[in-house]
Amino acid sequence: MSSAHPAAAVELDDLPQPYLLFLGDVTEAGYAKTAFGLRDWASDRCIGQWGCGSTIDTGLPTLTPLEAWVRGARGIVIGVATPGGAIPPRWVEALIEALEAGLDVVSGMHTRLSSIAPLADAARRLGRRLIDVRVPPDGLPVGTGRRRTGRRLLTVGTDCAVGKKYTALALAKALAERGDAVDFRASGQTGILIAGRGVPMDAVVADFAAGAAERLSPAAEPSHWDIVEGQGSLFHPAYAGVSLALLHGTQPDAFVVCHQPDRPHVLGYPDFALPDVVEVIELTMRLGQRTNPRIRCVGVAFDTSRLDADDATARMHAEGARLGLPVADPVRGGDAFTALVDAVRAVSP
Amino acid sequence: MSSAHPAAAVELDDLPQPYLLFLGDVTEAGYAKTAFGLRDWASDRCIGQWGCGSTIDTGLPTLTPLEAWVRGARGIVIGVATPGGAIPPRWVEALIEALEAGLDVVSGMHTRLSSIAPLADAARRLGRRLIDVRVPPDGLPVGTGRRRTGRRLLTVGTDCAVGKKYTALALAKALAERGDAVDFRASGQTGILIAGRGVPMDAVVADFAAGAAERLSPAAEPSHWDIVEGQGSLFHPAYAGVSLALLHGTQPDAFVVCHQPDRPHVLGYPDFALPDVVEVIELTMRLGQRTNPRIRCVGVAFDTSRLDADDATARMHAEGARLGLPVADPVRGGDAFTALVDAVRAVSP
Repeated sequence: MSSAHPAAAVELDDLPQPYLLFLGDVTEAGYAKTAFGLRDWASDRCIGQWGCGSTIDTGLPTLTPLEAWVRGARGIVIGVATPGGAIPPRWVEALIEALEAGLDVVSGMHTRLSSIAPLADAARRLGRRLIDVRVPPDGLPVGTGRRRTGRRLLTVGTDCAVGKKYTALALAKALAERGDAVDFRASGQTGILIAGRGVPMDAVVADFAAGAAERLSPAAEPSHWDIVEGQGSLFHPAYAGVSLALLHGTQPDAFVVCHQPDRPHVLGYPDFALPDVVEVIELTMRLGQRTNPRIRCVGVAFDTSRLDADDATARMHAEGARLGLPVADPVRGGDAFTALVDAVRAVSP
Repeated sequence: MSSAHPAAAVELDDLPQPYLLFLGDVTEAGYAKTAFGLRDWASDRCIGQWGCGSTIDTGLPTLTPLEAWVRGARGIVIGVATPGGAIPPRWVEALIEALEAGLDVVSGMHTRLSSIAPLADAARRLGRRLIDVRVPPDGLPVGTGRRRTGRRLLTVGTDCAVGKKYTALALAKALAERGDAVDFRASGQTGILIAGRGVPMDAVVADFAAGAAERLSPAAEPSHWDIVEGQGSLFHPAYAGVSLALLHGTQPDAFVVCHQPDRPHVLGYPDFALPDVVEVIELTMRLGQRTNPRIRCVGVAFDTSRLDADDATARMHAEGARLGLPVADPVRGGDAFTALVDAVRAVSP
């Protein structure tokens, strides 16, 4: 699949910045992870938001492509996803307007921008770039299962969109602030846009998924941390295979379970209840031991963004008491998050 | 990845037959699954074997490409695999000789034949076809997890190359002979070459793997059986993700565990012991219940090809007594296999 496309290793310096964040016509915040992720972790490179019927609000100023270009924007990033990663036809017209205003288009979706004929035609006519960051690197190997030096932490989840990327970014930042040698390892398109590198795990051909995870988190100094962004959930009816390949390939020494405590069911799958955090810990331990017998759970990250502070604190206390593990919301931070960071740092090389 | 390539649905009528089976320079029988599978399940379409240093013997006459062409062969099928599915450079010269002798080349490997410049040049010069059957269909959806009508059986394994395809083919044949409505569902290149259709699961982009498995085994009449060829193993350090996606997507009512009782470790992974059959049953039940709470193990298939008849019978008896389930070698057949078929048929719609 790779020979027809450029290699994936888009470096941040190559990306047309700053960005206007495109929100399409999406109305469910869970599908706007890219927009929120860039706002929170690359805010210095985002100057506005724009949609075609979206009700999502990132808090950034709403600007037309032309207004954004006048204020310095050079790229429009598709900041929302659809299940499966297709680009709906109605977005194409809006993206062509952005091309006409002077912006390049950056996408992390499965559909290649260049495969959309009107978009490709407009880009060619206007001399603009179409940049897909969800293209795996060439030459990925199959997994070897061989143990590597260095420490690794994987964020796992009860579902998609429960804070696996946020938790990994927050932990990597906290470890770096304490002077530890650490790398954030991006496994999804938003993480790649933030970090400027990584492997889009869900776009890798299935046979090479564990091998891709091995390459994403290579051998390192014994005390070095790779903090790996997880994908999906072992309990997800569509994406569990990706989650398992990432678990086997990263062979983590430690993992953090990410969970949204007020979510009733798997996002977009009302017939599938969310698993209990204990089930996720137990299954992750069991499957992860196949490639790293030392794997352990060091704590839990709650996404409490829809709860008030008192409710959030009460739920995290109760869960911490039930599990005997640190439970924190990395976005809220505080002593609970410090305890989670300390638990990570206590994992010996 | 799909737009640049033809759709996968190569029908048997399109394939250049009969075949000469190409064995490369492979010396380990475990990597010659395609050659043995075609010999055993499509023998009427195989007239010989040929290699460039291989010690594998399928029992078919050894013929040069020219000798094979004279006897009626019209295609050479790459009957061996390498880990990861690449085509070694030394094979290319041999395949060009086959093209020059008048044969088209058929491959189920990951590497596209047309991506190998000397091969593509020779095919163009000589007017021959290069046919890749390991190309997933266009437009695969993400998994839905929705329950479908009809009965499904999945063959799972303690490893790769332990008889999952053979077991599925033998069960499908036995059910058909008893008058049941049944389809064999091929999930790998050899099965696709035998059945003339299917989905090459390990070549699907990871995000769509469960959705591909759903499409492979669609809704059917309540009493109809899909007998689905499994892939890899939930315990395999490289391929477990594919196995889990196939399990979730096919949502089997029944599964058979395939095992080679004299294999010491995972093929090609000496640091990874084979799991016990009981572990495979237990983990398959646990993970499979996520999309089908009715899932059950109906029996075990042993590959006893390296054991003498007495040893094979003794081991199957012992395992059957330990598990309380039918244990049979589908290749040896006999009463044990009849008991396995009866156990499958006892699963109510």
